[in-house]
Amino acid sequence: MMIFEEVVQRAVEETSGALAAIIMARDGISLSMYLKPEVVLDLETMGIEYANLLGDIMRASETMQAGGVKEVSLTTDRYVVHIRVLNAEYFVALILDPNGNLGKGRFLLRVSAPSLLKEL
Amino acid sequence: MMIFEEVVQRAVEETSGALAAIIMARDGISLSMYLKPEVVLDLETMGIEYANLLGDIMRASETMQAGGVKEVSLTTDRYVVHIRVLNAEYFVALILDPNGNLGKGRFLLRVSAPSLLKEL
Repeated sequence: MMIFEEVVQRAVEETSGALAAIIMARDGISLSMYLKPEVVLDLETMGIEYANLLGDIMRASETMQAGGVKEVSLTTDRYVVHIRVLNAEYFVALILDPNGNLGKGRFLLRVSAPSLLKEL
Repeated sequence: MMIFEEVVQRAVEETSGALAAIIMARDGISLSMYLKPEVVLDLETMGIEYANLLGDIMRASETMQAGGVKEVSLTTDRYVVHIRVLNAEYFVALILDPNGNLGKGRFLLRVSAPSLLKEL
């Protein structure tokens, strides 16, 4: 199994409440994704929305001279989403249910970032 | 001291690495803010950027049918920002340095939200 598939699957399987994970380019083309077997989500469409949102956030961060964006977490009524920026082109997003373990998911994406970066 | 002033000051003073906090309406008018004495930040301008960003995020969340946005955390090279949505009109944002205790700040904003809401 390639490292990309391995990372998204492991992030989902090892984080309580995680539903899906996706590695995507900022232009909305997905590189790898994994959905928990029983979960129904339009993951690719969600990923494209996150890609757009990340663009908005990066522009706002520039305006504020806050530097590059590294991580974004988002809690809505239905989901918790954690996004880790990998480089100028790619990001990885983990989607959890509202009671999911965001801290664990964030940790797993952080520690797997270096091995993803080596392949990107 | 009014509850608004109390909450922003306490969130900053009791969170390690916190720099400033602001309660703001989504139209960019601030209700209350507190900066750590030695910190220089254009907090009002940052707040307006967050208000705009929150609007973008809320629209994306609607598009994804993910429901209302409750919390947003953002890590950049220079800051960590945690935003808690209070109601349709107001939000509170805490700004930390990159090594600040995001978990503690998030907790403090969460537990103080009900008392803020009573006054809004």
